[in-house]
Amino acid sequence: MEQKTYSLVIVGFGGMGSYHVQLIEPCEHLSVTGVYDLVDYRMELAAAKGFKAYDSLEAVLSDETVNVVLIATPNDVHKSIAIQALKSGKHVICEKPVTITSADLLDILAVAEEENRIFMVHQNRRWDEDFLIIQDIIQKKKIGETFHLESRVQGANGIPGDWRQLQAYGGGMLLDWGVHLLDQLLLLTGSKIDSVSAELSTILGTEVDDGFTSNIRFKDGLTAVIEVGTTNFIKLPRWYVKGTEGTAIIRDWDLSGEIVVNNPDVVKVEPKPIQAGQGLTKTMAPPSEESTLRLPIGKPESTKQSFYDNFVSVIEGKSEPLVKNDEVHRVLRLIETIFEAAEKQVILKGLEL
Amino acid sequence: MEQKTYSLVIVGFGGMGSYHVQLIEPCEHLSVTGVYDLVDYRMELAAAKGFKAYDSLEAVLSDETVNVVLIATPNDVHKSIAIQALKSGKHVICEKPVTITSADLLDILAVAEEENRIFMVHQNRRWDEDFLIIQDIIQKKKIGETFHLESRVQGANGIPGDWRQLQAYGGGMLLDWGVHLLDQLLLLTGSKIDSVSAELSTILGTEVDDGFTSNIRFKDGLTAVIEVGTTNFIKLPRWYVKGTEGTAIIRDWDLSGEIVVNNPDVVKVEPKPIQAGQGLTKTMAPPSEESTLRLPIGKPESTKQSFYDNFVSVIEGKSEPLVKNDEVHRVLRLIETIFEAAEKQVILKGLEL
Repeated sequence: MEQKTYSLVIVGFGGMGSYHVQLIEPCEHLSVTGVYDLVDYRMELAAAKGFKAYDSLEAVLSDETVNVVLIATPNDVHKSIAIQALKSGKHVICEKPVTITSADLLDILAVAEEENRIFMVHQNRRWDEDFLIIQDIIQKKKIGETFHLESRVQGANGIPGDWRQLQAYGGGMLLDWGVHLLDQLLLLTGSKIDSVSAELSTILGTEVDDGFTSNIRFKDGLTAVIEVGTTNFIKLPRWYVKGTEGTAIIRDWDLSGEIVVNNPDVVKVEPKPIQAGQGLTKTMAPPSEESTLRLPIGKPESTKQSFYDNFVSVIEGKSEPLVKNDEVHRVLRLIETIFEAAEKQVILKGLEL
Repeated sequence: MEQKTYSLVIVGFGGMGSYHVQLIEPCEHLSVTGVYDLVDYRMELAAAKGFKAYDSLEAVLSDETVNVVLIATPNDVHKSIAIQALKSGKHVICEKPVTITSADLLDILAVAEEENRIFMVHQNRRWDEDFLIIQDIIQKKKIGETFHLESRVQGANGIPGDWRQLQAYGGGMLLDWGVHLLDQLLLLTGSKIDSVSAELSTILGTEVDDGFTSNIRFKDGLTAVIEVGTTNFIKLPRWYVKGTEGTAIIRDWDLSGEIVVNNPDVVKVEPKPIQAGQGLTKTMAPPSEESTLRLPIGKPESTKQSFYDNFVSVIEGKSEPLVKNDEVHRVLRLIETIFEAAEKQVILKGLEL
């Protein structure tokens, strides 16, 4: 039996929407056929690229040749478009953050179940190599038992000058980038969350957060610092992970980094004091050269299906989704918890999350 | 009139005690004449170096030729030795942390006042060049208004294998290194503290903290992360400071670092998206080369009296102390607040500190 090729229409043809064209390209059984956007020049751009330019959402949804709707609009209209599309019998791929509240996602999922359609959120950063490397380091216990991790993205450009600066559209950095870092975090441990505190940054004077820092403690003792900044002219490392036997660092998207671990073949000796500033310190002296090993961060085997191949497999009932809706829902609940902790300025404890 | 040279005896001749010998060397009007320690080999060492080896604290205190007692013992006996020395008419220099509780310090200060003797705490890291550079950057607004700073010292050696691992002796990293970083922090702003949260690290299983992280918010909005770690095989930067116009970093004791600021001569343009992992990002793209300036961290003029020159000046009524006892007292109160916040796992708010 020949496998079907599914026809996909992109709704919202801004930066991410048009980026999807190249992401879908390698997927044999999925084909971008049309585009719908409110902005004229984007429609002209789509037509110039050979896509069918729909003149309304209704036109997309009533086109029976369309199998999949991909939603890459501002965040506030994801829900309404998703529900309409599902009710029209379309499968749906939705950009992140899927919705502004976790309750909104449940509404979508209820319709998807009713209509027996697939709904999947494009959490593309689960495929980021830096994340996969850290996941591999933790799972293979390359630095012993991991007890602390710090995950940061930092820039100096402020919030992009569009709807991302506006609350009504679901703007702000916690929803925009936080959703990625928190989604990744929850995949790094099987443990439930015990406590959350957070601070939103509002240095730029926008009505939404221009960044945030959240301290998250899991029930198994793992602690995490998750941070997004848009007022950082110098970046701190993308990943900083501490284990009982060593530390791992990935500095940037270029995957520069290393692992430093105890050398199991050397009996640890008390270090010699070093001059540091106006004092001596033995505590903060580097470990002697022999007592540690400096290792590359490694590169896990890439056996993971692409997002789109997986999506087609899921439609055909051949695979479990690699991005599960209950995982996405948990991330939204965590985001809500972070907003609450920041607003109340308390450590929210005894969570069941 | 010829200036007097003061005779100083070191009580506690371990690592720091013996380090003081070389610190005092350049001070014209202060001379190390004797040593007292409980450990035999240290007394032999002191005698071999030509110092008078006292066989008891009483012998030191009843020696009328001794003007100054320097206390470099474990922390738990600072108070008792200081009070005895002051009551014997000696001026006193005390290692940090001066006492284990802020109340203990007040007891010492009451005696110093009664006896009209000088009592000064050796907060030597106020003279560290990295700190002086950061202070200069903040004061001169080289990165605009500073709104956030992170100050860290990290090592991989654990706690030194001595009394610093024991609670009864005032061990633990918050008292040992925290006292330096917090003392420096309070000199970087004139603002009172509004809230404190903290987490102690007990990864190594000692009865005291092997490190800590504290988030401190000042009433003027400045936020700070203060962190000490002894389980870090890779170090995060010593200083990371954010201002409205730029960011400053000092990576290590070697003073490597830089300042990156907005270029005032260039109108900021929206950056171009970059590929980062599996996505595009405009937000986290680097600022374009033209839009920022990369500057050296600079080196403030060093006009500060040395600790010991200042001490002599204070004895003679010629200078104000560079380390004021009410500043030291405030740091101890902050340490107590950090212990409390960590134990209760809450954000302590509405502080008057």
